[in-house]
Amino acid sequence: MKGIKGDTLSTQKLHIGIIGAGRIGRVHAETLAFRLPEAEIVAITDINREAAEALAARCNIPKVAASSAEILADKQIEAVLICSSTNTHADLIEQTAKAGKHIFCEKPIAFSLEQIDHALAAVKKAGVQLQIGFNRRFDANFARVRHAVATGEIGAPNLMHIISRDPGPPPLAYVKVSGGIFMDMTIHDFDMARFLIGDEVEEIYTAAGVRVDPEIGNAGDLDTALIVLRFRNGVIGTIDNCRKAPYGYDQRVEILGSEGKIATENCYPNQAVVSDGKSVHTDLPLNFFMERYTESFASELKSFVTAIREEQTTEVTGIDGRIPVAMALAARKSYDEHRPVRLEEVGG
Amino acid sequence: MKGIKGDTLSTQKLHIGIIGAGRIGRVHAETLAFRLPEAEIVAITDINREAAEALAARCNIPKVAASSAEILADKQIEAVLICSSTNTHADLIEQTAKAGKHIFCEKPIAFSLEQIDHALAAVKKAGVQLQIGFNRRFDANFARVRHAVATGEIGAPNLMHIISRDPGPPPLAYVKVSGGIFMDMTIHDFDMARFLIGDEVEEIYTAAGVRVDPEIGNAGDLDTALIVLRFRNGVIGTIDNCRKAPYGYDQRVEILGSEGKIATENCYPNQAVVSDGKSVHTDLPLNFFMERYTESFASELKSFVTAIREEQTTEVTGIDGRIPVAMALAARKSYDEHRPVRLEEVGG
Amino acid sequence: MKGIKGDTLSTQKLHIGIIGAGRIGRVHAETLAFRLPEAEIVAITDINREAAEALAARCNIPKVAASSAEILADKQIEAVLICSSTNTHADLIEQTAKAGKHIFCEKPIAFSLEQIDHALAAVKKAGVQLQIGFNRRFDANFARVRHAVATGEIGAPNLMHIISRDPGPPPLAYVKVSGGIFMDMTIHDFDMARFLIGDEVEEIYTAAGVRVDPEIGNAGDLDTALIVLRFRNGVIGTIDNCRKAPYGYDQRVEILGSEGKIATENCYPNQAVVSDGKSVHTDLPLNFFMERYTESFASELKSFVTAIREEQTTEVTGIDGRIPVAMALAARKSYDEHRPVRLEEVGG
Amino acid sequence: MKGIKGDTLSTQKLHIGIIGAGRIGRVHAETLAFRLPEAEIVAITDINREAAEALAARCNIPKVAASSAEILADKQIEAVLICSSTNTHADLIEQTAKAGKHIFCEKPIAFSLEQIDHALAAVKKAGVQLQIGFNRRFDANFARVRHAVATGEIGAPNLMHIISRDPGPPPLAYVKVSGGIFMDMTIHDFDMARFLIGDEVEEIYTAAGVRVDPEIGNAGDLDTALIVLRFRNGVIGTIDNCRKAPYGYDQRVEILGSEGKIATENCYPNQAVVSDGKSVHTDLPLNFFMERYTESFASELKSFVTAIREEQTTEVTGIDGRIPVAMALAARKSYDEHRPVRLEEVGG
Repeated sequence: MKGIKGDTLSTQKLHIGIIGAGRIGRVHAETLAFRLPEAEIVAITDINREAAEALAARCNIPKVAASSAEILADKQIEAVLICSSTNTHADLIEQTAKAGKHIFCEKPIAFSLEQIDHALAAVKKAGVQLQIGFNRRFDANFARVRHAVATGEIGAPNLMHIISRDPGPPPLAYVKVSGGIFMDMTIHDFDMARFLIGDEVEEIYTAAGVRVDPEIGNAGDLDTALIVLRFRNGVIGTIDNCRKAPYGYDQRVEILGSEGKIATENCYPNQAVVSDGKSVHTDLPLNFFMERYTESFASELKSFVTAIREEQTTEVTGIDGRIPVAMALAARKSYDEHRPVRLEEVGG
Repeated sequence: MKGIKGDTLSTQKLHIGIIGAGRIGRVHAETLAFRLPEAEIVAITDINREAAEALAARCNIPKVAASSAEILADKQIEAVLICSSTNTHADLIEQTAKAGKHIFCEKPIAFSLEQIDHALAAVKKAGVQLQIGFNRRFDANFARVRHAVATGEIGAPNLMHIISRDPGPPPLAYVKVSGGIFMDMTIHDFDMARFLIGDEVEEIYTAAGVRVDPEIGNAGDLDTALIVLRFRNGVIGTIDNCRKAPYGYDQRVEILGSEGKIATENCYPNQAVVSDGKSVHTDLPLNFFMERYTESFASELKSFVTAIREEQTTEVTGIDGRIPVAMALAARKSYDEHRPVRLEEVGG
Repeated sequence: MKGIKGDTLSTQKLHIGIIGAGRIGRVHAETLAFRLPEAEIVAITDINREAAEALAARCNIPKVAASSAEILADKQIEAVLICSSTNTHADLIEQTAKAGKHIFCEKPIAFSLEQIDHALAAVKKAGVQLQIGFNRRFDANFARVRHAVATGEIGAPNLMHIISRDPGPPPLAYVKVSGGIFMDMTIHDFDMARFLIGDEVEEIYTAAGVRVDPEIGNAGDLDTALIVLRFRNGVIGTIDNCRKAPYGYDQRVEILGSEGKIATENCYPNQAVVSDGKSVHTDLPLNFFMERYTESFASELKSFVTAIREEQTTEVTGIDGRIPVAMALAARKSYDEHRPVRLEEVGG
Repeated sequence: MKGIKGDTLSTQKLHIGIIGAGRIGRVHAETLAFRLPEAEIVAITDINREAAEALAARCNIPKVAASSAEILADKQIEAVLICSSTNTHADLIEQTAKAGKHIFCEKPIAFSLEQIDHALAAVKKAGVQLQIGFNRRFDANFARVRHAVATGEIGAPNLMHIISRDPGPPPLAYVKVSGGIFMDMTIHDFDMARFLIGDEVEEIYTAAGVRVDPEIGNAGDLDTALIVLRFRNGVIGTIDNCRKAPYGYDQRVEILGSEGKIATENCYPNQAVVSDGKSVHTDLPLNFFMERYTESFASELKSFVTAIREEQTTEVTGIDGRIPVAMALAARKSYDEHRPVRLEEVGG
């Protein structure tokens, strides 16, 4: 399938179908409907038809499809956003690729590398484009850090720290199907680590525990983790994860290079500082990913739509979706075996 | 004319016409088109027809009207945005009111209080709603400061400072028709002062000069000013204006109250801090009002659309458009006569 | 009298007598005793003999003199620190000058320009050195700002703001003999304004009131003030004074120049930031001048001792003591007459 | 030997001898001479007699002893400061203890636990007091963090990060005798980790490399390290060390607790912020430990002198000197064997 480059660029909209009308599906639908005039949502579907209908009404989507199959069969649709639950991603990627449509898929593709490889093979065979939903790459803070590393502004990187803490743990029911903290939460940070340094991790060491809620431990998961990354180029990095930061969403990175360091702070709802008889204080940081990463969600979709329309490779490809899953597997194996684990040990 | 309250609220869009397709007209058109599903632009006009056509294409506006008269005659249009040059505001308000349509008008209404009073009388007579474009009230920082004052978080206010500096002076041609720095630039700060303190200014003293560009002085204007405000409730305030801040747009306020202070910092494109061998530094603040106040422009229109649809009074009324003009007149008179001037001396 | 320059420099200590063992006398005695090996306190006196004896014991001062006359008659003493109450300063300067000893005198010299002129004439006649205790010039923050202006780091200065607020008002008894807020509190800021800009103020406008404590008003004084300064070189400045800042001592300056701005923040007891479920906060700034300006007190005495020993002019001379008093007189006159007042009107 | 408690407290000075007149010896001598009136230096010695004489002259020390033996034999001396090179510490502690004098000894006591245990046994037998020179515990920032943990201000600690980077590597000659980065540099951070959390580390994992200077690697040492600490109470911590931070000395900690986090920033020579056409920037942080930790050096000696005079246990005891050495041994073993190492494996 061809892109729609050329003199039609400014008028011809990209026709999109959306599978999944849950939380992230709604974010993407609103971006497409209200902020991206160059795209048009043709149809949406969800196993919860009511959710799909409500979102269709809100975003002026003309058709609520009965199934993903109906989306894939729609000749008008050029690209599909897969926003359904993780266990459906790999199959939907494969089917969408076979239908000759470009794909935007939320992370992670799957919990197993075999499934991922199968899906990526289908994408390659079909010659369609695939973008994985690692939205944080499009965040102004992290993009600025990547810029500093890529341009040599801080010299060659030596040490990297990612702090990524949720305001509170998800419901236990979700924890049980989430694939575990490394697959569900750290996956973003694994992607961020590769993105920021511009190199691959070869070994991972995990120190972790259950500090927030014993029930998370009873479910076989962890809620607090410190992961050490050794990159091929010698950079040493850490990821600090916790399911509970009482002050809100904590999303920071810091890189020390041979010529300087760059560090980001959290984002706040305003820049007001109050000084009273007790302390000098500000309001809490933006509370969670929907507020914190609003703009990055819009930017990633704009990037996807642009890539398809201009026939360029997407900024976050299938392999970018595969590697963080391998890293998550290695992180868990390191925890289980209490030793550093090389990515190649888990098929990474 | 009635609002459109009631059970039609969630489905019936507010039909809007726009007069003026320049810089600010474009901002509002984009907000309405892409971010406010509850409004719909029916028609747009501009004395530069090409500008109107380009914006209509970009924002899917179905009609480019030949004149403002055509807009005012359009029965479908319920509300009009007046985004044309300042010298047309008062007349257009009057005509729009007579046409029975609600009005959103950019600041200032006019440079003379007589013209303003004439326009406001027409609005009152027609019983339509009027909102003046003091967008900064809808900015998260200033709204937070107002909240602190209104709720007593910092006690009773005693001292207030507004710093409001442009990154660079406007073209000299613009300076000559701008009405002067107090009418063009300080007008926003006069509104902010009233809004933040929640009280009226009774006396103004101005110290000012030409420090940025002698040509501005040759044109009879000033480019650097310090204005002292004495409020009825005894609060003392200052406004610091300069047409040139080499580091970009500088927009801060600070209020000292009996129980504490609140101060705002500028807004930045990112929260990254770079430390190298020379300094610890950040990128420059957001460069000018289009970047800095993006969200406030969207919020003010949302507020306007909501007020009309729900038949409530707008958040920035006609009198809020009149008083800052009186303050600008007093500020200039104080400079000319080198003494404190009471607002009542200029008809305020 | 000669300095003690030359090869004796490293061994010969400067012999000092101190008049006044109150709060500021104690600060200076401790600096000399414990931090300035190049000086030696020979004797101290105070109208409260017990205070002098206690301080002598603490600082190993060998002699407690019965009177200032005894200090001035002591042949060994080369320099005298006048730390007694303001009403004694002018006379003591005159007598110390006549005794041929160098002088360090706390601010202000006197509340009247006549008294000051008399004292400065005696200093000139005697050919001794005089340094006035404007310690803030020696503070790291303000010295950094002065450096930026003096070197052109921010271009030519255009606007200046000084914020100077006490944590709470002094006892009413003190207020009544203090000479008023401009003479007692703003005097430091008047000096700072001249020091930072490196130019003289020619006109002052004052807006002020009683906002903190009505008793201060009943005593004929003010507790909240905003003073506008117009410098000869066209710079416009403000001083913001309040007798009560509930969050502690607030001491900041900001200067906008043609090429940039420089602004200082308050000083804190530590650099820790706590984020909890309610806010992101720090401890309060250093509470008052004894903590905030500790190092500047040590630096000003070091500067004085060095100037005397190396036969150089002191960094803060008699005229630097006179001008802020004239500025205080003009500020009050402006308040009383509700108009801008030129310094020359008060003999400045 | 007894302390000197009781009614002599305010007059009787603690008589001190100093062994070592190098960099740190000079810091301590100046503190005692100029800032601690309750102590008196009786004698000093150094293998470089000239250095001892210069320091004696500067600090008014009456006697330059020919050897440490002469110091230990001096009946007047009650306490000895051991500021000589590390390889002499253990022996000098033993001899000083045998001489019945209290001891302040710089860190580390020795590179081997056997030597340390031998020295500590002598101290115990003699019944004298011993304080180890972990000055950072007395720093305002770290004391504030400890306070937050100890009082439960941030709840129970879960994750801890220490960043500790030097502005540049020491001379290679020093590196070779330093005992390696963990014994020379991280030793402070090991102490800080125990101090802040108030619990013991049971396991260490090290990721490290040579990133700054290959010569450091050729000397068998490392210059960049990330050390993971697992505390008995389940807290997970990291230490980030680098021999080169191009922007100066970087000394920060952060702790996430169940109720909040506390984080410290670096210390700066001033609080001025410059905004120009390129960036918003500050001067660099305080450059190295002599500037950064000035006050903590004074506080630790004051604490030592007070403990001796009041017959209390010192705040940093012999065991506090032993454990960080065991941690350094474990950190190196972890690096060498590429696995987590329990402290008990190295005799910790």
